[in-house]
Amino acid sequence: MQFPIRVYYENTDAGGVVYHAQYLNFFERARTELLRTLSFSQQKLFAEKIAFVVKKIEIDYKATARLDDMLIIETEIVKLKKASIIFKQKLWREKECLTEATVTVACVNLEKMKPIVIPDVILVQLQAVGSF
Amino acid sequence: MQFPIRVYYENTDAGGVVYHAQYLNFFERARTELLRTLSFSQQKLFAEKIAFVVKKIEIDYKATARLDDMLIIETEIVKLKKASIIFKQKLWREKECLTEATVTVACVNLEKMKPIVIPDVILVQLQAVGSF
Amino acid sequence: MQFPIRVYYENTDAGGVVYHAQYLNFFERARTELLRTLSFSQQKLFAEKIAFVVKKIEIDYKATARLDDMLIIETEIVKLKKASIIFKQKLWREKECLTEATVTVACVNLEKMKPIVIPDVILVQLQAVGSF
Amino acid sequence: MQFPIRVYYENTDAGGVVYHAQYLNFFERARTELLRTLSFSQQKLFAEKIAFVVKKIEIDYKATARLDDMLIIETEIVKLKKASIIFKQKLWREKECLTEATVTVACVNLEKMKPIVIPDVILVQLQAVGSF
Repeated sequence: MQFPIRVYYENTDAGGVVYHAQYLNFFERARTELLRTLSFSQQKLFAEKIAFVVKKIEIDYKATARLDDMLIIETEIVKLKKASIIFKQKLWREKECLTEATVTVACVNLEKMKPIVIPDVILVQLQAVGSF
Repeated sequence: MQFPIRVYYENTDAGGVVYHAQYLNFFERARTELLRTLSFSQQKLFAEKIAFVVKKIEIDYKATARLDDMLIIETEIVKLKKASIIFKQKLWREKECLTEATVTVACVNLEKMKPIVIPDVILVQLQAVGSF
Repeated sequence: MQFPIRVYYENTDAGGVVYHAQYLNFFERARTELLRTLSFSQQKLFAEKIAFVVKKIEIDYKATARLDDMLIIETEIVKLKKASIIFKQKLWREKECLTEATVTVACVNLEKMKPIVIPDVILVQLQAVGSF
Repeated sequence: MQFPIRVYYENTDAGGVVYHAQYLNFFERARTELLRTLSFSQQKLFAEKIAFVVKKIEIDYKATARLDDMLIIETEIVKLKKASIIFKQKLWREKECLTEATVTVACVNLEKMKPIVIPDVILVQLQAVGSF
């Protein structure tokens, strides 16, 4: 899935470029939108005390995004396990890949903050969009 | 109460100064620390589904803070009502007041997001530190 | 002008709602987009060492926005002075106005951080979109 | 070096815990403080158009930090190259390690955003604090 992001002042720092932690926000928005296309919202899951939480991120910063840039985030599911999902995400400005991340998210019960198996109804939908 | 704040990259923007919304974060930290000195934590209140939420802010930006600045926030309670508190907050860099805010926070029940009367045990403590 | 905002996890806090300082980010995005429609980008101004900086904000929080909400920000210029602009901004979720702000921004020279007169080429365009 | 961090509302999300991207802010503060102990500030470097920018992060989220937590970040330099530094950083709440990161930062010229060799005066000081 491809998702557009516009860079605003809030995303930049005194170096004149996008602050490095902001890319994680951008990637999270894109994963959320991927999940939204699967017809379940995180707020509904949240009501059932289920959430996807980030367990591991590897991120490479190749070039910097700047104020006013219009970026595209490409998100794909590269591995689907019983209790976790591995995403590969790339952030593009036109034909240049600025940042690349591998993100592992786990399904958890929010009250106990313990990993749980991804509910079947969600798993089936994730399998349909995965690239594996 | 006086509370120190250091400015980091995360607080700045491409204009080379502290991003305007970050001052609200700084002021919130200082209000939280004032409440903490009163021997109740917001997390404990949160467990009882009580929170203080911001209802109104008036903020004047007089001069800009910059990366690496060490700032001081001065916080005082100027009015204490049954269900709300009015704070006056000033942000200083040495002898220069950079920003000044009047912040009204209301006591709410988090589940219903409805205003409630400030619990007596808290009210008594707030009265002891107020400047009125 | 009307501008849509989606609420993501990054905008929320442990109270389960949008963190109060995040509304300033939302309003800033909308002002930037209003300026963008006038065919000058803030990055171009930035290259000329000119920026619009926030001098004063009055914000009323009436009701809370939540995760996954799709919001609309309505922005209008209510006063245009030689060196500053006053915006009135409202944030809507469907027919409910959640937050309302009056924002004064001043035109400054970024190197000296001193107020300057708004360049004529910009002023003429701002006059065309103002509601006064 | 050990650096304390207090968790405020601004750092949390609707899941009730610290938002995953905020840990990068925390780690950045700790790296900045390590550099500050070496008697050069990033603002001074910035004036000379030199900055350290993040090139790569690997971060493991083991357990979640929460509102009001007092955390400690442990930062060490594990490798020092001609144009980059590799930090190992751990975030602790008492005896529990909540998050662990390996962060590669490169020395760059801010105007050209090109990697440059770390100035000798800095390199010598970094060698003195490194754990290698």
